[in-house]
Amino acid sequence: MRSVSVIGIGETKFGKFIDRPINDMIKEAGEAAISDAGINKSDIQAVYFGNFNGQMLCKQGHMGPLVTEVLGLGTIPSVRTEGACASGSLAFRQAAIAIMCGIYDIVLVGGAEKMCHQDTETVTEALTTAMDFHSEVELGLTFPGIFAQMANRYFHEYRDVKKAMAMCAVNAHSNAMLNPDAQMQKPITVDKVLSAGMICDPLSLYDCSLVTDGSAFVVLATTEIAEKLNKHRIVELVGSGHAGDAVTLYNKQSLTTLAATVNAAKEAYTMAGLTPKDIDFAEVHDCFTITQILNIEDLGFFEKGHGGDAVEEGKIARDGIIPINVSGGLKAKGHPIGATGISQVYEVVSQLRGNAGERQLKKTDIGLTHNLGGSAGTCVINIFKGR
Amino acid sequence: MRSVSVIGIGETKFGKFIDRPINDMIKEAGEAAISDAGINKSDIQAVYFGNFNGQMLCKQGHMGPLVTEVLGLGTIPSVRTEGACASGSLAFRQAAIAIMCGIYDIVLVGGAEKMCHQDTETVTEALTTAMDFHSEVELGLTFPGIFAQMANRYFHEYRDVKKAMAMCAVNAHSNAMLNPDAQMQKPITVDKVLSAGMICDPLSLYDCSLVTDGSAFVVLATTEIAEKLNKHRIVELVGSGHAGDAVTLYNKQSLTTLAATVNAAKEAYTMAGLTPKDIDFAEVHDCFTITQILNIEDLGFFEKGHGGDAVEEGKIARDGIIPINVSGGLKAKGHPIGATGISQVYEVVSQLRGNAGERQLKKTDIGLTHNLGGSAGTCVINIFKGR
Repeated sequence: MRSVSVIGIGETKFGKFIDRPINDMIKEAGEAAISDAGINKSDIQAVYFGNFNGQMLCKQGHMGPLVTEVLGLGTIPSVRTEGACASGSLAFRQAAIAIMCGIYDIVLVGGAEKMCHQDTETVTEALTTAMDFHSEVELGLTFPGIFAQMANRYFHEYRDVKKAMAMCAVNAHSNAMLNPDAQMQKPITVDKVLSAGMICDPLSLYDCSLVTDGSAFVVLATTEIAEKLNKHRIVELVGSGHAGDAVTLYNKQSLTTLAATVNAAKEAYTMAGLTPKDIDFAEVHDCFTITQILNIEDLGFFEKGHGGDAVEEGKIARDGIIPINVSGGLKAKGHPIGATGISQVYEVVSQLRGNAGERQLKKTDIGLTHNLGGSAGTCVINIFKGR
Repeated sequence: MRSVSVIGIGETKFGKFIDRPINDMIKEAGEAAISDAGINKSDIQAVYFGNFNGQMLCKQGHMGPLVTEVLGLGTIPSVRTEGACASGSLAFRQAAIAIMCGIYDIVLVGGAEKMCHQDTETVTEALTTAMDFHSEVELGLTFPGIFAQMANRYFHEYRDVKKAMAMCAVNAHSNAMLNPDAQMQKPITVDKVLSAGMICDPLSLYDCSLVTDGSAFVVLATTEIAEKLNKHRIVELVGSGHAGDAVTLYNKQSLTTLAATVNAAKEAYTMAGLTPKDIDFAEVHDCFTITQILNIEDLGFFEKGHGGDAVEEGKIARDGIIPINVSGGLKAKGHPIGATGISQVYEVVSQLRGNAGERQLKKTDIGLTHNLGGSAGTCVINIFKGR
């Protein structure tokens, strides 16, 4: 198998852009990634694109050829992937596999979602299609209800980590304020999170990620091409893992250990020949604050049941032992669903190149992205090494 | 790259099954394919699944892990692909690439769509998401309007082929009556097609494919595994091609030569080291009868402008020089969108194995599948060889 590297990155600002068509956001982010790579459009051989629910939100499906048309890429092949909130990462992984295999040498990978123009009821209905309709949605369950059950079960099995959850949110907002692309640009406090309106006990308003419009793209190529271009620090994909689980909550073995994360991590670490201790920083899926705590444990960064302690001890802060979601994460950068997995790669590459502006970390040689779909029915993990 | 073969196939009956959940259809077709392969569920390492618009039609997205859950496949990874009517073929191609690459050895690939429980307005709205919303759907265009424009342009550039189009429909119904899985089980005549109610001039009711519920699955593996299993005739994927075009009609170079078909065919023939003359029979995308005529030309089976002559001369019939859509095709077997590309493979494998019952062809060593998405914004072509 051939080695794959990220040679270009681009993203729009994340936020509420009600009057901006999704095509416009795709064009901006896609052109930025191509320009950053320093290649010609005619060098791109295929497009892989993650979108969760353009059909219900924008009455737009078939977004693969929409992307090639908007970007003027001619008659090259394109694929849309969908795996709920992991839609973008699925696109990334399939593109990487096609390059590893020798089918393509240079591929454009992106994602986008436009959500803010819809009312809350429509957005909620669109989001619940990531759950099982017959056994969950028809009974009235929504995602805050799913992750609240996980949180309560975690409190039962380990301890109440409401304060640590609040600190995840505070950390995310603090990081987002250093990211010009982030939707949230204001600080919050632990007290504010803990006293905010309850969405679904124990999740308050500030425990929940955002409804966001945005798009992100990267260009992938063989590492040989990346070396020839010699434009940026080489950022090589050294590990990739993908695993699943039941789409329903009731068919999962555990609500507090996410099998999809554990298994995808195992595959990615094995491929990379690395352990959790080797990871310098990570973008971790935080659709809710409790999700982040479960995942930093399941990724092996902290012992099971001690993710909350780590957060309270400042270990995930920018100056901690493993900074988490320096971009602001889904919680404060925002969560334009199909774009999220690609935007995670955008952040890791920015950090590894040393181009992350005010939020640049000091030691950045190895970064990890972790992207979940639904109630962890899908998980994709990537490990990148700068060299 | 490793060689890939189809080791198992399964599909449901196609038709109107209003009270049957999509999960049930997935379970039936998936289990049939696994059983046909003679493998254990634990041998399956990943699922690739094509679905066009479960979100609007069934309020169900995230169908990758839905499939693994319904089939009891544990925590293996899954991917949903969407490329309008080519959604299933995209899943097939990505799965094949992952096996070629050495990522997986045995993969389950399927597709499903449930449409008939919705009213015509909802189905029409769901289908139009495969077009460009802003420049086509908002202006009132639907798919009969798209393909009627192609037909009229073909009549202008070459000749009026209404009679040949009607004969495509007659051929499809005739074949479907020999396929127990087909939705249509009644013969029609050229006169009946030509005198039927007009949907969009020149397309009458019988020029249009069906609204259908159904699911189809196949199991892919390395050819080495297929040989070891030694259960069926080996059906090897010898060629695969994938190309695209603008999603909009107005940005295509031609309405009568489909660039996506031409380019995907070129890739597939080159990989296989074959020419159109080597193909014994083919399943060709016939969302409308005119589509079939365009495609049998663009696939190189007949000269441009002479597809209608070939149909009128009986060349695509079961006893013709290249039988087309022996299964009944989208027109008469039915078109459960996400399942269509996989069901095409089901038919080709059945024929190559000599298991196609009453519709079994005589000489079947090399078969081709051709699957389009939207107004030919996506095309995937596969060539299979029995040995």
